[in-house]
Amino acid sequence: MTLAAVEAAAARIAGHIRPTPMIELAQVRNRPVANRLFLKLENLQVTGAFKARGAINRLLTTPRESLQNGIVTASGGNHGMAVARAGLIAQVPTTIYLPPNASPAKIRALAGWDATVHVVGETWDDADAAARDHAESKGAIYFHPFKDPDVVIGQGTVALEMLSAVPEADVYLVAIGGGGLIASLATVVHARNPKARIIGIEPVGSPTLHAALAAGGPVRLERQWTRVATMSCGMTAPLIYDIVAKHVEEIVLVEDEHLIDAARWILAELAIRADLSAAAAIAALRLGKIRLAPHERISTLICGADDAALGTQGTAI
Amino acid sequence: MTLAAVEAAAARIAGHIRPTPMIELAQVRNRPVANRLFLKLENLQVTGAFKARGAINRLLTTPRESLQNGIVTASGGNHGMAVARAGLIAQVPTTIYLPPNASPAKIRALAGWDATVHVVGETWDDADAAARDHAESKGAIYFHPFKDPDVVIGQGTVALEMLSAVPEADVYLVAIGGGGLIASLATVVHARNPKARIIGIEPVGSPTLHAALAAGGPVRLERQWTRVATMSCGMTAPLIYDIVAKHVEEIVLVEDEHLIDAARWILAELAIRADLSAAAAIAALRLGKIRLAPHERISTLICGADDAALGTQGTAI
Repeated sequence: MTLAAVEAAAARIAGHIRPTPMIELAQVRNRPVANRLFLKLENLQVTGAFKARGAINRLLTTPRESLQNGIVTASGGNHGMAVARAGLIAQVPTTIYLPPNASPAKIRALAGWDATVHVVGETWDDADAAARDHAESKGAIYFHPFKDPDVVIGQGTVALEMLSAVPEADVYLVAIGGGGLIASLATVVHARNPKARIIGIEPVGSPTLHAALAAGGPVRLERQWTRVATMSCGMTAPLIYDIVAKHVEEIVLVEDEHLIDAARWILAELAIRADLSAAAAIAALRLGKIRLAPHERISTLICGADDAALGTQGTAI
Repeated sequence: MTLAAVEAAAARIAGHIRPTPMIELAQVRNRPVANRLFLKLENLQVTGAFKARGAINRLLTTPRESLQNGIVTASGGNHGMAVARAGLIAQVPTTIYLPPNASPAKIRALAGWDATVHVVGETWDDADAAARDHAESKGAIYFHPFKDPDVVIGQGTVALEMLSAVPEADVYLVAIGGGGLIASLATVVHARNPKARIIGIEPVGSPTLHAALAAGGPVRLERQWTRVATMSCGMTAPLIYDIVAKHVEEIVLVEDEHLIDAARWILAELAIRADLSAAAAIAALRLGKIRLAPHERISTLICGADDAALGTQGTAI
């Protein structure tokens, strides 16, 4: 995981993703913070989230012949959408395993990308186990959402675009599920700007990296009670842990209710339907949980669109 | 109405509007057209539409002392939102008259901007008459959505930004309600690029400029049966007519159903909740109603967010 690897990924996937805009927060009625704040709008990315980057990078780094038995993954939503699209591009069968807390809208949208969807078990870990079984028994390739280096490297391409749009940001705020995004973003940002402060945000009900940092290594959470599927993960990977331990200053925890409030704020102020993980940075700022000097400029991202902004051709709105 | 006037407006309003992004349509499953297509995302403008530009320009060109009796307008939605915000900035009472086909969500959102809202009559013309009465009896200033030159000049600032982002566009597609946007955009674009083709789009159920061009001057429509309030107008103004007659190549008519289909396409492909007028260009393209040479680059705008993307602090989502 290096800056050079992410730069190579950016060149590789350029023809398959959208360059998304980055806007400065301005003209809002109730600012969450006085500091200058920049938002990368990955809700406008194809499939509605930055996850398109990692999935297509994994596809393009995988030999064509090894894909003949299809692609499989386990994902509560956005990564699954991205993998389904990658499978459609590759024209191979794609199977997505989901936990029951995945949203009906995401399940419908996955079908719209021609994926076969199985809802299994109780948590993401159960879906992950089913996806691993499927990969082994069918010979399918597992595009893991955060253990797969090519997926994680692909996600980092968003950080290159953020740096290009706002080179001088001082603080980066990143929502954490498994930790792939923050790990690759941290690798990129610190290679270019070692003084930047990188802060992660997790739900109180799934403190995956927070617990890992306290324990000195990845640990399995006994239970997760967040309702935010895209920020729910039982245990991170050693690869992710090592990068986060080295590069991330702090992990801030927020309640689900504050994520919901922040998503409402984003809708009211920006007319953007962000998913709850996309509201994490705004939630942490509104709660005053991020220590900031007045001059510090904040760079963050609306990492995905919410279900109300998902659809497939012919879906009723 | 000149390029210089719009440039002066852009400088005047810069501290009160958001610079919105312009994206190229890419990575969609079903392109409406093979040509390169660029979209200015005015759904991300403050109050959810380009109308913020005109209202704030009118405010800033109006002597402070003349506003003491408040501001009034008639608007089925986005202009009303923009005027309500202008009134809030000026800290004067603001009154909005609406026809009954205005959406409940817009009415709630207007209240969120502290405006007094009256639903009157049957059509926009009735609301307009009530707003004129109010202006006369109360001494309030009427910010007219398309007869007021300072409002119309303000709307044109979006065209400056579109030209700046994509200087080489060949074809401009613009939805028409009263015609203020297309008139000011045409003035700006033809001052910079006289060869650009400017095409308007109206609903079959409110062919305001289409009928005016056929008649050789503004005419009052006997009835309007479109359900799209933001594209519904009984008669344009002479100022608008003269510019449109000179600069607009053609007015294309589309059915409400095709606007709804196009809004669904925008949601499914771009995860953007566009209002129906914002879907007009995509609708016309999908219907094959725009004659295009393969090399021609299209510039258009998502002029507003739909109701599902509107809210006020504390609104349920």
